[in-house]
Amino acid sequence: MTPRPHRPHDRAQAVVALGGGHGLHGSLTALRMLVDDLTVDELTAVVTVADNGGSSGRLRGEFGVLPPGDLRMALAALCGDDEWGDTWARVLQHRFEGDGEMRGHVVGNLLIVGLWELLGDHVDALDWVGRLLGAKGRVLPMAMTPMDITAEVRGLADDPDELTVVRGQVEVATTDGVIVSIALDPPDPDVSSAVLTAIDEADWAVLGPGSWFTSVIPHLLVPQLRDALVATDARLIVVLNLAEQQGETGGFGPADHLAVLAEHAPALAVHTVLADRESVGDDADELRSVVRALGARLVIDDIAMGDGTPRHDPVLLAAAYARIMQSS
Amino acid sequence: MTPRPHRPHDRAQAVVALGGGHGLHGSLTALRMLVDDLTVDELTAVVTVADNGGSSGRLRGEFGVLPPGDLRMALAALCGDDEWGDTWARVLQHRFEGDGEMRGHVVGNLLIVGLWELLGDHVDALDWVGRLLGAKGRVLPMAMTPMDITAEVRGLADDPDELTVVRGQVEVATTDGVIVSIALDPPDPDVSSAVLTAIDEADWAVLGPGSWFTSVIPHLLVPQLRDALVATDARLIVVLNLAEQQGETGGFGPADHLAVLAEHAPALAVHTVLADRESVGDDADELRSVVRALGARLVIDDIAMGDGTPRHDPVLLAAAYARIMQSS
Repeated sequence: MTPRPHRPHDRAQAVVALGGGHGLHGSLTALRMLVDDLTVDELTAVVTVADNGGSSGRLRGEFGVLPPGDLRMALAALCGDDEWGDTWARVLQHRFEGDGEMRGHVVGNLLIVGLWELLGDHVDALDWVGRLLGAKGRVLPMAMTPMDITAEVRGLADDPDELTVVRGQVEVATTDGVIVSIALDPPDPDVSSAVLTAIDEADWAVLGPGSWFTSVIPHLLVPQLRDALVATDARLIVVLNLAEQQGETGGFGPADHLAVLAEHAPALAVHTVLADRESVGDDADELRSVVRALGARLVIDDIAMGDGTPRHDPVLLAAAYARIMQSS
Repeated sequence: MTPRPHRPHDRAQAVVALGGGHGLHGSLTALRMLVDDLTVDELTAVVTVADNGGSSGRLRGEFGVLPPGDLRMALAALCGDDEWGDTWARVLQHRFEGDGEMRGHVVGNLLIVGLWELLGDHVDALDWVGRLLGAKGRVLPMAMTPMDITAEVRGLADDPDELTVVRGQVEVATTDGVIVSIALDPPDPDVSSAVLTAIDEADWAVLGPGSWFTSVIPHLLVPQLRDALVATDARLIVVLNLAEQQGETGGFGPADHLAVLAEHAPALAVHTVLADRESVGDDADELRSVVRALGARLVIDDIAMGDGTPRHDPVLLAAAYARIMQSS
């Protein structure tokens, strides 16, 4: 990829956001605001496709397609902010209840799978849903084939040092053991050229927040994706979670999150680590050491909802992103 | 309802088309062309909601909603004729195959049910789907509650004169006996004010073609709908089927179709009966007698596909509608 001068700071930025699930949804909700205020002029979401649970898991099992749920959630986050975009986003996010065969299925998942079957092209189909929503950015799958996450986990066997392999996003996310490392199956999936171009042309790449082992780190395990992130001139912002997640990151502090990420992709240059002030708390010194070791810059800001839930406040997160992008 | 002068003939016409299933789909495909050429400026479809089979029957059973299939098909017929309308119509009409739990479900049915659940208003939800498609008309349900069709059928019992009651659209449409009469359950469902207003303000009402006992006559059995059709100044066109349907109209000629319709709604004034030349064949004299007895005008025209299937050719049907509307 050809080196390319960064855009001057007074120009709008191209941003790629990588992740999955609710974490990516929150990050995109913030980044969408920066599209509205013209800080960002090109926004692309790159979404994990390893889910094997719920409506997505059922559809993946029935049709052999990419699990649509995280893609749908990312699209909904980017919907136009008029009645049209808002209504269709709510329709796409609507989950059937009751106790019949449709229970648990989500309307948007079914629509996406229908489009995939009809058009025969995952990327084209997602662009159609984006147009339906008046989406303020593009949503792309991390890989062109459904993925399985496997994890080496300690603490499940009688011997406390023995490693057990756990398979499946749901199973990894809810393991009782301590995750030592994760891997993907297949290990080297195809990545769409649209994803590689977006990473190549981005000014900023945003990784996280989200389920660390099952939504964030998987991006670094896809060889084509990791190589693109290493080669691009885009500056990488890693957004840390606000809390450990029972199961996959039980007992993990902010520095631990960053350390396992670096272990899974040693060649990756991190430009900025963004962490919430209150969540970091007494761990600031330890986090600062790890950030310095990575050659990155640490930005500690108030970005939590402040309602006791471990969720980022979209407005505060947008403001933090804007400050980072404008000060570099 | 206030008497209102008919629009002058050189002005565009308001049309209400009543029916269901493939028959209504064909009629709407023709009427949509008259919207494009400005012969028709307001087009409203009023659709049966008595289906109890297939994807519609499953969703009706699971959620207690109106069966969405015929409504979806009518919406698809009215889709905008650009890539946008065409693509979304094909997505809505897409039926899942395979052998899993989604087998047989249709994407548009699921989208419509999702919208109903979310918005809590059947008419509003159908208008949203219409806007998605860029539909050239409005699609409304015949009644605001799911209906069941019952039929008195002769020939199912040992005594050839004994009448047996058959219940359900699928069961009536495929009965081995001869249908003597049909009824609806509940007998007096609510009808939306949008339907009543459309009928009141129409210049023309089109009834048929379609499954005669299960898609056409049911409209005349809903008291509010029949009263509106009797009271309106709109001139009623009855479009006859091209052939008998095995099951519900086995052995029925064109005159029989018209006769059973009149029996079910004696007060209804029919303005024009439209029949296909080849389908009428030797039955022309008998049909002419029944039409005359109804005080209606008979128009015999070439409106069949000409490929051996009992389907109307949309272009020929549109031309026939246009001639009828312009000559009256």
